[in-house]
Amino acid sequence: MPSRFELANAIRALSMDAVQKAKSGHPGAPMGMADIAEVLWNDYLKHNPNDPKWPDRDRFVLSNGHGSMLLYSLLHLTGYELELEQLRNFRQLHAKTAGHPEFGYAPGIETTTGPLGQGLANAVGMAIAEKTLAAQFNRPGHTIVDHQTYCFAGDGCMMEGISHEVSSLAGTLGLGKLTVFYDDNGISIDGEVEGWFTDDTAKRFEAYGWHVVPNVDGHDPEQIKAAIELARSHEEKPSLIICKTIIGFGAPNKQGKEECHGAPLGDEEVAAARKQLDWPHAPFHVPEPIYQAWDAREQGKTQQDDWQARFARYRDEHPELAREFSRRTQCQLPAEITSEAFIEKMQEQGETIATRKASLLCLNELGPQLPELLGGSADLAPSNLTFWSGAKPISRENPSGNYLHYGVREFGMGAIMNGIVLHGGFIPYGATFLIFMEYMRNSVRMAALMGKRAIYVFTHDSIGLGEDGPTHQPVEQLTNLRTTPNLCTWRPCDAVETAAAWDAAIKRNSGPTALVLSRQNLPHQERSKQQLAEIQRGAYVLKDSEGTPELILIATGSEVGLAMDAAAELENQGRAVRVVSMPSAYRFDGQDAEYREKVLPHAVTKRIAIEAGHADYWYKYVGLDGRVIGMTTYGESAPAGDLFKHFGFTKENVLEKAKELLG
Amino acid sequence: MPSRFELANAIRALSMDAVQKAKSGHPGAPMGMADIAEVLWNDYLKHNPNDPKWPDRDRFVLSNGHGSMLLYSLLHLTGYELELEQLRNFRQLHAKTAGHPEFGYAPGIETTTGPLGQGLANAVGMAIAEKTLAAQFNRPGHTIVDHQTYCFAGDGCMMEGISHEVSSLAGTLGLGKLTVFYDDNGISIDGEVEGWFTDDTAKRFEAYGWHVVPNVDGHDPEQIKAAIELARSHEEKPSLIICKTIIGFGAPNKQGKEECHGAPLGDEEVAAARKQLDWPHAPFHVPEPIYQAWDAREQGKTQQDDWQARFARYRDEHPELAREFSRRTQCQLPAEITSEAFIEKMQEQGETIATRKASLLCLNELGPQLPELLGGSADLAPSNLTFWSGAKPISRENPSGNYLHYGVREFGMGAIMNGIVLHGGFIPYGATFLIFMEYMRNSVRMAALMGKRAIYVFTHDSIGLGEDGPTHQPVEQLTNLRTTPNLCTWRPCDAVETAAAWDAAIKRNSGPTALVLSRQNLPHQERSKQQLAEIQRGAYVLKDSEGTPELILIATGSEVGLAMDAAAELENQGRAVRVVSMPSAYRFDGQDAEYREKVLPHAVTKRIAIEAGHADYWYKYVGLDGRVIGMTTYGESAPAGDLFKHFGFTKENVLEKAKELLG
Repeated sequence: MPSRFELANAIRALSMDAVQKAKSGHPGAPMGMADIAEVLWNDYLKHNPNDPKWPDRDRFVLSNGHGSMLLYSLLHLTGYELELEQLRNFRQLHAKTAGHPEFGYAPGIETTTGPLGQGLANAVGMAIAEKTLAAQFNRPGHTIVDHQTYCFAGDGCMMEGISHEVSSLAGTLGLGKLTVFYDDNGISIDGEVEGWFTDDTAKRFEAYGWHVVPNVDGHDPEQIKAAIELARSHEEKPSLIICKTIIGFGAPNKQGKEECHGAPLGDEEVAAARKQLDWPHAPFHVPEPIYQAWDAREQGKTQQDDWQARFARYRDEHPELAREFSRRTQCQLPAEITSEAFIEKMQEQGETIATRKASLLCLNELGPQLPELLGGSADLAPSNLTFWSGAKPISRENPSGNYLHYGVREFGMGAIMNGIVLHGGFIPYGATFLIFMEYMRNSVRMAALMGKRAIYVFTHDSIGLGEDGPTHQPVEQLTNLRTTPNLCTWRPCDAVETAAAWDAAIKRNSGPTALVLSRQNLPHQERSKQQLAEIQRGAYVLKDSEGTPELILIATGSEVGLAMDAAAELENQGRAVRVVSMPSAYRFDGQDAEYREKVLPHAVTKRIAIEAGHADYWYKYVGLDGRVIGMTTYGESAPAGDLFKHFGFTKENVLEKAKELLG
Repeated sequence: MPSRFELANAIRALSMDAVQKAKSGHPGAPMGMADIAEVLWNDYLKHNPNDPKWPDRDRFVLSNGHGSMLLYSLLHLTGYELELEQLRNFRQLHAKTAGHPEFGYAPGIETTTGPLGQGLANAVGMAIAEKTLAAQFNRPGHTIVDHQTYCFAGDGCMMEGISHEVSSLAGTLGLGKLTVFYDDNGISIDGEVEGWFTDDTAKRFEAYGWHVVPNVDGHDPEQIKAAIELARSHEEKPSLIICKTIIGFGAPNKQGKEECHGAPLGDEEVAAARKQLDWPHAPFHVPEPIYQAWDAREQGKTQQDDWQARFARYRDEHPELAREFSRRTQCQLPAEITSEAFIEKMQEQGETIATRKASLLCLNELGPQLPELLGGSADLAPSNLTFWSGAKPISRENPSGNYLHYGVREFGMGAIMNGIVLHGGFIPYGATFLIFMEYMRNSVRMAALMGKRAIYVFTHDSIGLGEDGPTHQPVEQLTNLRTTPNLCTWRPCDAVETAAAWDAAIKRNSGPTALVLSRQNLPHQERSKQQLAEIQRGAYVLKDSEGTPELILIATGSEVGLAMDAAAELENQGRAVRVVSMPSAYRFDGQDAEYREKVLPHAVTKRIAIEAGHADYWYKYVGLDGRVIGMTTYGESAPAGDLFKHFGFTKENVLEKAKELLG
């Protein structure tokens, strides 16, 4: 039977070998955290390498994602489908072993990490999801949701602001099944952290209401084990285990120094480490007894079989709940939801309301049908209008609700939403003002990169918010969202398009959706059946001319009404004008060439785009000969009506631009 | 002599009246913090309303900027040029009294606040600037820099992640002249914060190494005064004064509740508050004795006169230092710097290096000439190459340096930089990977909105960073920067353009500059004298055809070399091809029409833009008939060369696209 030290050294050797072969990567963290990982994975982690999607598995998040070789080593050693060849191809094109762990690339990667602090936030989201799913589905005598969330985090994660946001919320919510291992190695890229990071981290986390196990020797398996036992015994509070470790442990000349953090050790030092660790094996060679000791497949099967048996009994007693559990954890929508009928209803009702209000109506309609909706707002519920009639706050004592008061924590919200959706069983939606998307920006990108269904409700979408002024008025944010790959952005022009956007958002399971909504009322637009159906194509002809148009007005959201008014006036003047409403450029760009040509015929080069967002984006659709009525400066503080006038969003200005083009 | 309560009520009355008249705004915070403000401003704040730019004034930052009427009331009452008429026009177009305090709108506004947490960060930056400027300029017997930084912050600021980043760093740096008043009123927009915010904030800040004065009754002037005395006596640590307050204090039916936070009280409640506060005066009427008691002009003059006299003595003994102090605090560059000569030198040397490396050469050249440069990196100094040969870290004990190890705190860095530049005496530059610009994104926007000279060194600017993979590879970030109003973005193609970009950044005093730099080596480009001069125009013809070009290739940064190679090949094929290098679209768009037409003649519609960033931006320059070789998906983890091939940044692909256009 190999010793614990030998088992940990398998991680160290694979990590330093892979980094060396790739000629790039981060050996320090895997070598430093190998002993912690060994104890956690071999003695505690509940998982089945043959079924990485088993809903009741423990979740493991490597928040210090640059230490990816730690995770790849663990997955490989415990029996996941991650062959040695993949480790040899670390950081090469098409390998499953990317520089940072990429969700969907290798089985067993629970989330994409690398941008520091977000993995910790994902873990908080997973622990929230577990607690809430358990409260919603477990029944007396039937515990079908009961798993831990473990997270490794480094100094970088602890310095990032997001660690504050999510740890504070985790403490408030009493996430007792969350255990975070802080790799307290005292080193970051600029060197020894004492020059820029002197927090008493134990005290800080106690201030958040966490249970803290300080001063654990991260290279002593007994101490690590004792700490984990303590953590597991505290069921009312999340636990932070502060592990003193040596970065690059085992590399005799580089350990404990920054130089082993983010670069290969070099052949010489790798050889010296082999000696130091008493690991005489060739690169990438792991002796069979060590493989056997690590292999978690049999135990994992036993654990999952046991759960399956328990789930079968649950299904017998609670067949409907069991069906619902399976449906939700498999990301399937209910067989019938009324979102399409609701679009038609909105069209019939013809209400002139703010699109944020329309969004609330959608939630009131869909909420009761979609118990997987897990909403929230970063302390702007009364403004974002996300707290629908059936919303119930999730709290420490009552975790079964469907709404999180995230507090003023936009970035934390975004990354927690990612953790929730990655956990499974939920469709998270979260809200803030569009401008404060910037605070959570990288978490939106991460959802898009991972292709996960998160829904953002971004209200107060332009200068139309009025008096709060330029700090609160988005200008360039729409372009930012629209140029984010795999993010579907909607800016609806009325209640009908809002309903269509929500319908699309719910049904899109390949990535996130941003709903960009107005504070102010927007006029209802009339539509034929065909037009109604075409909203889903992202852009459509809302008003057409007889015959070929001389001019096309393209508008979104609050500017569609303006475009319609201007078009009516131009028509009176005998002009042939088409109005294209483009609530979602993402969807429109995904249509076939024929449809796109039908809506925006190449021959019609006289085009004006109108949007109270940054102008530059729109040249994509109006070209060098078109005009854009948009923003190129910041807004101002004033009533919305004054601002639209001030910045040229008037019928007169559209007519003037039209005259420039038409002569 | 009016009582303290009466003095504070002047703030309350003006605030509720102005919000009521504007029919929008936030009365709760001004009414809740009026007593604290009264004690601080009347008994402690060193300032001169007649010279809001006096370098040695205390700095006051309202981080909970929605309480703007608190600040406007204070400025008006103490005698700044902010007439009552401005308060009556609160939140109206062209008023100085915007919804949130906007730097540059009214005298005495030290920074624009509103986006929560950033004001606190600005205050930390100001306190750093004070401490470092003092260390650089004070001499035995001559203390010409010696002022306090005071900050008001609310629950929102405390929940935001950035409060962690900057408070942690403030503790490490021992910013003893920073005092933060936490408005602990227990209310945020979603209601009573106990459902989502249960931190032991005192303990948290002690963990950062702060001096904390807990449990202060924020409506008791004696307690407030005692707390400030304690704070001032702790010179080694920043102080947090935790003030228990009642939001909307004085509004009998709404105080202590969320409903007085962000909406007018209503005429009835305003009247009731007048009674409750025993403030019988008409709206916007402040009795003369109260004005007199508030008036700070005389005392301010005395204080500044005293400082002027001391400065005169300093000038006598240290004439050169005094000149330098004046120069730096007036934002003037030295009469001669060699940045232009350095561009020529780079052209002559013709080195093929990474532009991040070229940036380091620029710093090594300019650093010794510009002691106001205050650099830093968010823990990526060895990668960003910002720690130049003369860089000296600023630490608690040695504050006289010129370089901040910000730690892994991008957002904190950005907002601290804003505080530093707002304080005066410094040109801050700060660095991270371009992708992590997203973490600090809103602080970059704030610098642009305020028109302040901050310089961002964003390295690792594309898939060219290679193996770290998609989480680290920017795609849409360049577009995000370029569409930010008043932000000047540069993406230089070689060492020469990098030197030009640094020259421009240093000389641009109307807003921030982003330098977007490569990790990898970029080939040197040959240039005539004219071409060299034209770099400053943002875009220029780097290689031209004989006669009118059939095709224009537009490229930036690492793709300029590719464009040149492709153009050479096309020329061999007999094609007339122009290559335009466009390091700064911002600068190019600012050129006159004639120059723009000369570089990109309207008649030449066959254009290909090449950039390893998001494609959409480039339709602005290539139009509907052009082509863009750019990114529309995320990157991958692999060696850079493999990625450029994989994503189509090859000569072959350029030639193919050229063929499509040219037939």
